Amino acid sequence: MMSMNLIITVDRNDERSLQTQLYEALREQILKGSLPAGKRLPSTRSMSEQLGIARNTVMLAYERLAAEDYITSRAKAGIFVNHKLPDATVLLRNGHGAAQPLRKRLRLGKNPTFTGRSPQLWHEKRTRPQFDFFVGRPHPAGFPTTFWQRAVTRHLTYARGTQTEYGDPQGLAALREAIAAHLAETRGISPGADQIMITSGIQGALNLLARIFLAGASKASVAVENPCYQGAAYLFGSYGASICPIDVDEQGIIVSQLEGFMGNLVYVTPSHQFPTGCTLSLDRRLHLLDWAYQTGSYIIEDDYDSDFRYDGPPLTALAGLDRNGHVIYLGTFSKSIGAGLRIGYAVLPRHLIDPARIVKTLTDNGAPWLEQAVIADFLKEGAFLRHLRRIRRSYMGARDAVVEAVAKHFPGGELLGQECGMHMMWTLPPNLPSANEMHRLARNCGVGLYPFAGAAVHEYGTPGRFRERSLVLGYTGLGQEDIREAFGRVADILALS
Amino acid sequence: MMSMNLIITVDRNDERSLQTQLYEALREQILKGSLPAGKRLPSTRSMSEQLGIARNTVMLAYERLAAEDYITSRAKAGIFVNHKLPDATVLLRNGHGAAQPLRKRLRLGKNPTFTGRSPQLWHEKRTRPQFDFFVGRPHPAGFPTTFWQRAVTRHLTYARGTQTEYGDPQGLAALREAIAAHLAETRGISPGADQIMITSGIQGALNLLARIFLAGASKASVAVENPCYQGAAYLFGSYGASICPIDVDEQGIIVSQLEGFMGNLVYVTPSHQFPTGCTLSLDRRLHLLDWAYQTGSYIIEDDYDSDFRYDGPPLTALAGLDRNGHVIYLGTFSKSIGAGLRIGYAVLPRHLIDPARIVKTLTDNGAPWLEQAVIADFLKEGAFLRHLRRIRRSYMGARDAVVEAVAKHFPGGELLGQECGMHMMWTLPPNLPSANEMHRLARNCGVGLYPFAGAAVHEYGTPGRFRERSLVLGYTGLGQEDIREAFGRVADILALS
Repeated sequence: MMSMNLIITVDRNDERSLQTQLYEALREQILKGSLPAGKRLPSTRSMSEQLGIARNTVMLAYERLAAEDYITSRAKAGIFVNHKLPDATVLLRNGHGAAQPLRKRLRLGKNPTFTGRSPQLWHEKRTRPQFDFFVGRPHPAGFPTTFWQRAVTRHLTYARGTQTEYGDPQGLAALREAIAAHLAETRGISPGADQIMITSGIQGALNLLARIFLAGASKASVAVENPCYQGAAYLFGSYGASICPIDVDEQGIIVSQLEGFMGNLVYVTPSHQFPTGCTLSLDRRLHLLDWAYQTGSYIIEDDYDSDFRYDGPPLTALAGLDRNGHVIYLGTFSKSIGAGLRIGYAVLPRHLIDPARIVKTLTDNGAPWLEQAVIADFLKEGAFLRHLRRIRRSYMGARDAVVEAVAKHFPGGELLGQECGMHMMWTLPPNLPSANEMHRLARNCGVGLYPFAGAAVHEYGTPGRFRERSLVLGYTGLGQEDIREAFGRVADILALS
Repeated sequence: MMSMNLIITVDRNDERSLQTQLYEALREQILKGSLPAGKRLPSTRSMSEQLGIARNTVMLAYERLAAEDYITSRAKAGIFVNHKLPDATVLLRNGHGAAQPLRKRLRLGKNPTFTGRSPQLWHEKRTRPQFDFFVGRPHPAGFPTTFWQRAVTRHLTYARGTQTEYGDPQGLAALREAIAAHLAETRGISPGADQIMITSGIQGALNLLARIFLAGASKASVAVENPCYQGAAYLFGSYGASICPIDVDEQGIIVSQLEGFMGNLVYVTPSHQFPTGCTLSLDRRLHLLDWAYQTGSYIIEDDYDSDFRYDGPPLTALAGLDRNGHVIYLGTFSKSIGAGLRIGYAVLPRHLIDPARIVKTLTDNGAPWLEQAVIADFLKEGAFLRHLRRIRRSYMGARDAVVEAVAKHFPGGELLGQECGMHMMWTLPPNLPSANEMHRLARNCGVGLYPFAGAAVHEYGTPGRFRERSLVLGYTGLGQEDIREAFGRVADILALS
C-alpha cells in the first residue's frame, strides 16, 4: 500500500537508468525521514505497476537498498525501512546539508595548511602563439614514433605480467643500468645502477630531495642561483625552507657568496645555467666542490639540457669531478625525448639511497613500467645516441637561425648560452623596449617571446641586470624558417610602433 | 718535451675510449698538481707518437680539456696548464679526497632530516613462492594486451607532439571526463571532471593529501582505521602527524571512537576494509558523515578494490552520500588493470583543487601522457566495463575456490570480506598454529600466506583479536586449480608436522 508521503517519479529521458532513479529516490526519502524507520515499502509488483516500469528493475533497486542496509525484507511480512538507521538528527542534517551556508562551518582556517605557488609549464587556454619561443620544448617531429610503437608492442607481447605487478620503486633495473652506461659515456660520471633513482622528471627528483633534506627540518635553508628555475625555488619554499639566493654572472653561480650561508644544500645548473645559459667555470666548480667538502654540504646538480652541446666537446658534469659523494646529479628525458614521458633520474651517493627509496615508495611507488622499459631499450640499442645526434643537428640549425636573425634585426644586445641546450638568454639592446613590452608587442603578431616570469624563471630581490631587459628564447620547438619569419614580424612591428 | 712527472698510460682493453683515458689521466695530473699551472703540455704530435695513438685522439682530448678550462693554447708558444686554476689546497683536497675517511666529515647528523618507513609491495629478491597469496595482484593474463597495443600505436601515430610537451599536471582532460562518467555509472558519485586529479595510484593521491593537510602544520593528527594499510599509516607518520588509531569491527571503523579525536582528517576504506574486508555499515556511514560535518573535518575514502563485487549489487561510495564536500574519494587502476600503470585518481571538493594543482605541479608535474590517453580510451569505449565483467567472473571463481578449500581443510576459522575485492582475511581456527608460523610452514611447500606485516598491514598498540591469528589471502593472482593445490599442500604439511 503506497504511503501518502511517498512520491516517486522516474523519467525515461533522464540519463540515469530507471533502476538508479528509483534507488536514489527511495534512498532520499529514507534519509529525509519521509519514509521513516519501520515503514513498509510497496511490493515490487505494486511499485512496478504504479511506476509503469519492469518488476525486475524494482527488484534490482530494492536489492541495492537492502545491500546498503536501508531496507530489510522480512519473510512473508514484506519489505521495511530499516530500524537500525541512525537517529533523525543525523538523517536530516545529511539530507538537507547542501542547502545550508556550509563554507562557513568548514573550519578551513585550520585546514588544509598548504600554501604555495607553482610554475606554469602548461596553460589551460592553449592559445599558444603561432611562433612560440617558450623554453624547453623538444621539436614534436623529433619524437621517435616508430621506435616507440615497435618497442611498446614487443614489450606488451612478451613481458605480460609486468604491467599488473608493482615494480621496484627505485625504477626498472634495465633502465638504471642503461642510464649508468650512458652517463659514463657522455657525462664523465660512473655511477652504479644501484645509485640511480628513476623519478618523474627533474621536478620529481627535486621533490624527492626536498622531502629528504627539508621536510621535518625545523630551520632548513637552501642556496639557489639567482635567477633560477621557478619549479625549484617554489618547491623548496613550499617545504618551509628559507632560500638564500646567490648571484650569477657570466661564469655561473658566484661561489664566494656561499660564505656565511648557514644551510648545507645548494641547487645549481652548472652546464647551462637557467636562465642565463652560462657555464660554470672550472675555477668555480672546484671551489664549489671544496665548499661542499669543507662544510659537509650537498650540491644538487640539475643537468636539464646538456644533451645538446653545439660547439666543442661535451663538458664533464660537476658530479664527474666529485670525489667525496657531495654531488647529487639530476638528469631528465623531458628535453631529449619528451616531457610527456615524465621520466628523469637522480644519481645519489650510496648513503642516501635508503632514505630516497623510502620517500619514493611513500610518494608514488615508482614510475610506470612501460615508459621505463621502452626508454631502457632506446638507450641500450644505441638508438638514443643516434637520436641525440640527429636532433642536435636540427637544433643547431635553429640556434644559428636565432643568432643570425637577432644580429640582423636587433644588433647591440647580448645573446648568452649559445654553446648548448635549448634556449638562449637575450639581453635587449638599449633601443628596444622592456622585456614585458617586447612580450606584449610580439604577441600581437603571433610570436611568443618570454620575459623571466613567463619563462618559469624566478628572480629574488631587486630587479638585477637581467630581469627587466632579458628574454628567454627557447628555440628548439621551431624550424629555421619559422624563426626567421618570427623575428621579421617583430622587427616590422617595432618599426611601425 | 715530456715532463718527468707526467706518466700517462692508455690501455686498449680499457672499456673507456682512448680519448677519454687520455683526458682523464691529464685532468687527474692537473688536479693533483703534478702538472702545475703554467706547465707546457707535449704537442699533440709528440703525445700521439709517445703513446702510439692517433693524433686526432690527442687533439680531441686536448680540446675537451681546453673547453673545461684546464689548459689554454697560446698561439705559437704551445699548450699550457691554466693559470686561472684554484689554489693548490683546493686541488689537492679534491684530488685525494677519496682516500680520506670522509664519512666522518660529512655532518650527516644534521642532514638529511628524513626518517621513516615504507611498505614493501615489491621485493628485490623476487623469490616469490609458486603459489602466492600476496595482496592486490591482478591476474597477469587479465591484462588487455591487444587493446593496449592498438591504442598505443594509434595514439603515437595521430597525437604526435603530446609526448614532447608538458601536459596538464591535473591530468589529461579526456581521462578525467571518462573517470567522472564511470564513477557516476558505478559508484553513485557525480563529480565534475574539474574535481578529478590524476595521481600515481592511491599512494600518489595519499601523498598529495598529506602535503596539503599535514606538511606545514605544527600539530597535525590523522585518524586511521586499526588495523590499516601500511602505505597510509607510514606516509602520514612521515609528515610528522600524530596518528589516532580507531578500531575496526565487523561493521568497519567504530565511528563513536572518533569522539575526542582532535584532528580533522580521517582515512577509511569503507567498501572493503583493509585488511579485514568488512563493509562500513549504513548506520556508521551516516554517523561518520555527520561527524565530519559537525567538526569541519575531511574523510579520505580509499576505494582501492571495490571494482569487484561478487554478491549483490554494487554499493554506493561514501562520497555518493556526502552532501557537504567533506569526502575525498580515491580510486585506482592498479587493481583493475595493473599496478605497473601507476595511475589512480582523487575526487576533491572544488575548494581543494587549487592547492592540489599546485602541490601536484611541484611534486611531479603530472602523469605520463601515453598511459592516460590509453586508459581514457579504455574507459570511453566501454572496454573497461567489459574487462571488469570478465575478470570479475574469473576472480569470483578464485574466491569460491578459496572458500571451499579453507572449509574442506581447515574448518572452524573465519573468512571475512568475501563479498568483494581481491582478498579475504582468514582468522585461523584454534587448532592451527599462529599466523607467523603458518607463513613459515606454507613457505616451505611453495605457498605464500601472509600475516599482517607481510601483507602491508599496520596495526597499532597491543596485538588485538586480528593480528596474531589472521592471514590476508590475496587470491586474484591465482587460478582455481592453483588455489586447490596450494591449500592441499599446506594441509599435508600440517598433517605431517
